[in-house]
Amino acid sequence: MHPLDQATSLAPSSCGSLHGCTCDAYWNFGGPFGGVTAAILMRAVLERTDRLGDPCSITVNFTAAIARGSFDVAVRPIRTGRSVQHWYVELRQADVVAANATIVCAKRNATWAHQPVTPPSAPPAQSIEPMPNDSPNAFVRQFQFRFVEGTLERLPSFDGRLRSARTCLWLDNAVPRPWDFVGLTTFCDLFFGRIFHVQGTVFPAATVSMTAYFHIDSENLSALGDGPLLGVADANTFVAGFFDQTAQLWSPDGCLLATTTQIVNYRT
Amino acid sequence: MHPLDQATSLAPSSCGSLHGCTCDAYWNFGGPFGGVTAAILMRAVLERTDRLGDPCSITVNFTAAIARGSFDVAVRPIRTGRSVQHWYVELRQADVVAANATIVCAKRNATWAHQPVTPPSAPPAQSIEPMPNDSPNAFVRQFQFRFVEGTLERLPSFDGRLRSARTCLWLDNAVPRPWDFVGLTTFCDLFFGRIFHVQGTVFPAATVSMTAYFHIDSENLSALGDGPLLGVADANTFVAGFFDQTAQLWSPDGCLLATTTQIVNYRT
Repeated sequence: MHPLDQATSLAPSSCGSLHGCTCDAYWNFGGPFGGVTAAILMRAVLERTDRLGDPCSITVNFTAAIARGSFDVAVRPIRTGRSVQHWYVELRQADVVAANATIVCAKRNATWAHQPVTPPSAPPAQSIEPMPNDSPNAFVRQFQFRFVEGTLERLPSFDGRLRSARTCLWLDNAVPRPWDFVGLTTFCDLFFGRIFHVQGTVFPAATVSMTAYFHIDSENLSALGDGPLLGVADANTFVAGFFDQTAQLWSPDGCLLATTTQIVNYRT
Repeated sequence: MHPLDQATSLAPSSCGSLHGCTCDAYWNFGGPFGGVTAAILMRAVLERTDRLGDPCSITVNFTAAIARGSFDVAVRPIRTGRSVQHWYVELRQADVVAANATIVCAKRNATWAHQPVTPPSAPPAQSIEPMPNDSPNAFVRQFQFRFVEGTLERLPSFDGRLRSARTCLWLDNAVPRPWDFVGLTTFCDLFFGRIFHVQGTVFPAATVSMTAYFHIDSENLSALGDGPLLGVADANTFVAGFFDQTAQLWSPDGCLLATTTQIVNYRT
């Protein structure tokens, strides 16, 4: 079983909710990597037999620290329309809601289509050396990061020089895994905190909320196989302890798969 | 009382939830203008005496059509940390959840700050003629739209010519209203659907989910008084019945107040 499938696996529990367990392989500073938490909430909906169509959007709120060990996930259908369906999902440890999500699924139809945004230009992934795999944060070693524009410096502390918040990079699983919405949701949170890029140093910072929109259906997503995705990320503002970041995930042939944004709490 | 305060006013009801009523002054194609629905959910949290700090983010899902008449709003505190607080809010008509929201509030601290994004350049609002106030959609008449870049054409149907999805414009209330988070939340949804701009024609399209991040606290927000805000909006992709749009709201002196994104369902 792929480590990501292990980390996101859920089993039915006696009380009607789902039961899971944190996975050390995806550990971050003080808890599981948020992308995996988001993917767990997404998987809880993906596995519903009464699901309508494919995921269209997800908002995940990281409401409390998640401790090593087991958790429960409760899924509530909010509303099913003709072609759009809304879900609310909660991840709990004991009586604490540690994460929640609203997820929209939809049946998609062939319609007029138009893509004003253009894919970033980048050399092939294989022509770029991946970032060295020596991060103290376990989750980083589950992926490969090949920077096209920007890099992740790791100075002992901020040296006062402001670097660009924008990066472009190829992202991949260290162990290849066919593309699906569990993987795509995980990758929406795989962009390093923009503050690390701007300050050139890495330190704990907590995503408070993340939203992703998906622009592809499951059929076209699985047709991508298991190769790398091209990502671009940027930030608008860092102020009073919070910064935003925005990102896009592209297929190698220039199809926009997902757009995502998050708000992150920092202390510095 | 300002029309927006009337449209978003909530009274405690006997069952512990809040009670409100739709307002014809903010009617859109088939229901209330989504910005007002979002503001109602925001107000339900703003009026909580156990609220911690100011709104930091909101995700609103428009889960069902809202009929003319009364509705109930239920507010649930999800988790209160030291400086960040999470809420879940539902708007119901009878047994149908017609909208829900996750809202994050936070105490903000003076920290290192940095704003990589630059404000759009625009002539003063007063130097631009507002868009004629002849829309058949009542809510449009509650606001003023002064286009700096792009306009809203209203052809009988799409003529096949692709226009830019990007607009820059001054946005204001028709009746002046001091800035607060009810107003700012409303204005996050005040950008016309990007498909109208691209196709040059206006038709019903339904926002499915909207997320906004706020980059200002209530003190600095109210210090703005009641003037116009400068907005920029754009879209990345229109595919299979859904398009995304992204936007920024700026104060006249170049402070980024809010960044927002939404996903919209269209049929064409």
